Amino acid sequence: MITYETTLRILYAHTDVMGVVNNVRYLEFFEAGRNELMRSMGYPYPQLEAKNVALPLVDAHINFKTPARYDDMIRIVATLKEMPTVRIKIDYEIFVGERIVVTGYTTHSFLDLKKFRPVRPPEDFMDVVRKLMNN
Amino acid sequence: MITYETTLRILYAHTDVMGVVNNVRYLEFFEAGRNELMRSMGYPYPQLEAKNVALPLVDAHINFKTPARYDDMIRIVATLKEMPTVRIKIDYEIFVGERIVVTGYTTHSFLDLKKFRPVRPPEDFMDVVRKLMNN
Amino acid sequence: MITYETTLRILYAHTDVMGVVNNVRYLEFFEAGRNELMRSMGYPYPQLEAKNVALPLVDAHINFKTPARYDDMIRIVATLKEMPTVRIKIDYEIFVGERIVVTGYTTHSFLDLKKFRPVRPPEDFMDVVRKLMNN
Amino acid sequence: MITYETTLRILYAHTDVMGVVNNVRYLEFFEAGRNELMRSMGYPYPQLEAKNVALPLVDAHINFKTPARYDDMIRIVATLKEMPTVRIKIDYEIFVGERIVVTGYTTHSFLDLKKFRPVRPPEDFMDVVRKLMNN
Repeated sequence: MITYETTLRILYAHTDVMGVVNNVRYLEFFEAGRNELMRSMGYPYPQLEAKNVALPLVDAHINFKTPARYDDMIRIVATLKEMPTVRIKIDYEIFVGERIVVTGYTTHSFLDLKKFRPVRPPEDFMDVVRKLMNN
Repeated sequence: MITYETTLRILYAHTDVMGVVNNVRYLEFFEAGRNELMRSMGYPYPQLEAKNVALPLVDAHINFKTPARYDDMIRIVATLKEMPTVRIKIDYEIFVGERIVVTGYTTHSFLDLKKFRPVRPPEDFMDVVRKLMNN
Repeated sequence: MITYETTLRILYAHTDVMGVVNNVRYLEFFEAGRNELMRSMGYPYPQLEAKNVALPLVDAHINFKTPARYDDMIRIVATLKEMPTVRIKIDYEIFVGERIVVTGYTTHSFLDLKKFRPVRPPEDFMDVVRKLMNN
Repeated sequence: MITYETTLRILYAHTDVMGVVNNVRYLEFFEAGRNELMRSMGYPYPQLEAKNVALPLVDAHINFKTPARYDDMIRIVATLKEMPTVRIKIDYEIFVGERIVVTGYTTHSFLDLKKFRPVRPPEDFMDVVRKLMNN
């Protein structure tokens, strides 16, 4: 299990007329968490792109537990629980303080950006994941 | 089953560096479809709000099938398949022409906006749903 | 002067905790208006792209007059007032009914997408503009 | 002059098909800068709201200088140059490293949230501004 926490300040632009963060914003917070998780692993996302590999979403799920509000500092916890295969799944938990706001996950395929076809994950990426999973 | 189709033009603002519509945008397209589905039922969402009832999301799921691109005209098909209880579930299919782009659903609770507590759906809303379901 | 009106429904996703459309959303509405203005001219934006020309923004200005709200149908009036040179300026007025909500403009350069350098506007685009301006 | 710098990581969700940050995103980055400027002054925005005062935008201007790209860490420098009157103007400069990306400003009125009418800025806010301006 590899996990990392990113923090982010809620803006007016994230909220809606109901007075809380609008649902359409959470997938962006998931991306922020996923991005920093990979950086924390020593394998930032642009390193995948440099190998012509991208991680388009296969599916996404969000459970809305409690509202986040303007000026809240949210904590986005992104976690890799299982070894990637041709797909990789990231889990997310978003908190305000210790209160859970949202849980969810995204599944991604490894995509060859030149051929626009699925590929196996790069070997050096799998090496990094294996090492961190065994710690 | 009650279903309605809304169309929407893809903008540059919806796309990302991969050249396709970015995943964070689809929940907004779901809202556009849901909004027009309710209007088509003769019970637009503001009519719920006038009764101090809102429909916050409980969960959301998106399956990404194929990409949508800049200037595509997407067709958002929103469908109510089951009678609402204390919750209501809407299904979505997004197409470019006949090609499926995304499927998914959102589940909502009925929320009393004054007490910020779950409530039963308003009777006149249920009447409308029953009539249309029986057609 | 070439002008075109596009309509668009305001969603929850566009609003903020103040109960009105959030300011960050208007540049997207401007794009929707600009996009349909060009289509109405018989020269949709992808036709420019097919000539490897893009229209990145040089500057943008927005005057916020009155609020737009959830479920409003906004009318986005986009207007080309002056002959393009190496730049093109589009003016916008957004209304709810007859009430003015926002005015503004965007200025764009013509960009060669291969060399990533400014270029003169394509001749066939200028022909289209000249004909419509003289009507 | 009161100035503060906020940093923010560029996501895929911020970019568009041209490969750079889409123009519609910069007003949100301005809000992030403005928000942290006020916090740095010891008068965070929610303190205004607690006095039933909000700062809706009167106008906004953006000059697009050079592109920002995916995974760039942008520096948002927000500056208050002049004493507020019934309005307050904030200037912004956004950088990637030392390279300027965008400049601009927003002008805001002080709004009484109960009466939805313009008001004078709260005295304790003006005291804070005066003290910091004289340093």
